[in-house]
Amino acid sequence: MFTNRRDVQIQWGDCDPANIVYYPRYFAMFDDSTSILFEAAGCSKQDLVGVYGLVGIPMVDTGAKFYIPSTHGDWITIQSRIEKFNRSSFEVTHKVFKGEALAIEAFETRVLVGRDPADPARLQSVAVPAEIIEKFTRG
Amino acid sequence: MFTNRRDVQIQWGDCDPANIVYYPRYFAMFDDSTSILFEAAGCSKQDLVGVYGLVGIPMVDTGAKFYIPSTHGDWITIQSRIEKFNRSSFEVTHKVFKGEALAIEAFETRVLVGRDPADPARLQSVAVPAEIIEKFTRG
Amino acid sequence: MFTNRRDVQIQWGDCDPANIVYYPRYFAMFDDSTSILFEAAGCSKQDLVGVYGLVGIPMVDTGAKFYIPSTHGDWITIQSRIEKFNRSSFEVTHKVFKGEALAIEAFETRVLVGRDPADPARLQSVAVPAEIIEKFTRG
Amino acid sequence: MFTNRRDVQIQWGDCDPANIVYYPRYFAMFDDSTSILFEAAGCSKQDLVGVYGLVGIPMVDTGAKFYIPSTHGDWITIQSRIEKFNRSSFEVTHKVFKGEALAIEAFETRVLVGRDPADPARLQSVAVPAEIIEKFTRG
Repeated sequence: MFTNRRDVQIQWGDCDPANIVYYPRYFAMFDDSTSILFEAAGCSKQDLVGVYGLVGIPMVDTGAKFYIPSTHGDWITIQSRIEKFNRSSFEVTHKVFKGEALAIEAFETRVLVGRDPADPARLQSVAVPAEIIEKFTRG
Repeated sequence: MFTNRRDVQIQWGDCDPANIVYYPRYFAMFDDSTSILFEAAGCSKQDLVGVYGLVGIPMVDTGAKFYIPSTHGDWITIQSRIEKFNRSSFEVTHKVFKGEALAIEAFETRVLVGRDPADPARLQSVAVPAEIIEKFTRG
Repeated sequence: MFTNRRDVQIQWGDCDPANIVYYPRYFAMFDDSTSILFEAAGCSKQDLVGVYGLVGIPMVDTGAKFYIPSTHGDWITIQSRIEKFNRSSFEVTHKVFKGEALAIEAFETRVLVGRDPADPARLQSVAVPAEIIEKFTRG
Repeated sequence: MFTNRRDVQIQWGDCDPANIVYYPRYFAMFDDSTSILFEAAGCSKQDLVGVYGLVGIPMVDTGAKFYIPSTHGDWITIQSRIEKFNRSSFEVTHKVFKGEALAIEAFETRVLVGRDPADPARLQSVAVPAEIIEKFTRG
């Protein structure tokens, strides 16, 4: 499976009075990382909306285990990949490294959501298009 | 165990282009909810720092399952309780209700962290003071 | 002009490593305050979208002067009012009080934006409906 | 004066239900930009705390004018510079460009704050060290 790595510098505003990252900020970084993973695979979030007609890829289940804290100025590497595509959902993992050390492990299950053609105000799950899967699995 | 319920109105800025809550915002609401739970139990986060000398109660493991989305203007109820105290950590659950329906289930494991008296620059875990446990368990 | 006051408790995650509110969080509080002001006047942001067909009321000019810092646990009062309606924009002020003391003064100029009927992908400014003005000015 | 430019991609979570950047997010980007400006000048925020003993450089006055909106996937360039050093404060401007077009103009006045040696719980303004000014003004 296609994997993306990106380096992120922790900023002052990411940190709380204990001088470590306020953990909801990590979830925002992971959400960005999933978008950037899709873009790197050749299928940006803008394509998901504009080309594939999705409303979004909302979260249905997520979690994270935090092993090593970080503070402002620190650089972390976020390594993201899709572990599995299901019919209308997919599973992502994010591993955060500080140097060689594994600092955080996170997972996501997201569902593809579009509009019901019979009633555009209603949302419904959408099967993952084969060409999206192909973008992540091609050699 | 002492349980706290609070009503939160979803705001415009909590929502993303799909017009539903951007999920990292829920983790910020849950972090607030844990602080408010402590305050309601008679032991505010300010007390944790000022009275008990802690640096904070950082997250070591958290997760959430999202069943029903919400949008701006919606009111949700967040019901929070400590499920269990361990030696230097504790486990919290948050249940989000929209009306009667269970919309989100989340859990947290947090650890009590203070400064090493021998080297204040070093952080170390701290045993949960008995009087804090008592505040959550008294009839 | 109709004025709304609301009390907000500063939370842990609103604060930065200097243990005071991270100032972008105040702008989020002010954005919420403008929404809540509209709702209190009888015209919620949901109405702006659903009843009046607006896309939003985006910011065109904003600023804030910070006189007194706040930290987690502190309660502040945000007093918000529309100072003036222009043809398709309006001006809001927010005053933040800690007790009796004026802690922050902020202003906003926002514009009403809707879709061009001839081309829904294009946005255009929209004249403020008279009945919205009336909600804020009636005795 | 030393000027720093950096490219930022707008992310999904930066945007609101109108599908444009939620403006408080710009203030977070500007706060990051000021930190990155200092780091690029050879005096990081970590240095401000660790070397110069400051508690922070809190905002006393800020504002922004928004000319062109952006949405997720867009790239913007943030050009930041210190316009002027005062005794214990300094003034920053941020200009945001989309391609060649000026999209946002923002300014900041920040003050250097440290601990009162006679009472470390009290904060006080601190004169800008000459060597910091030099880092921004040397040819």
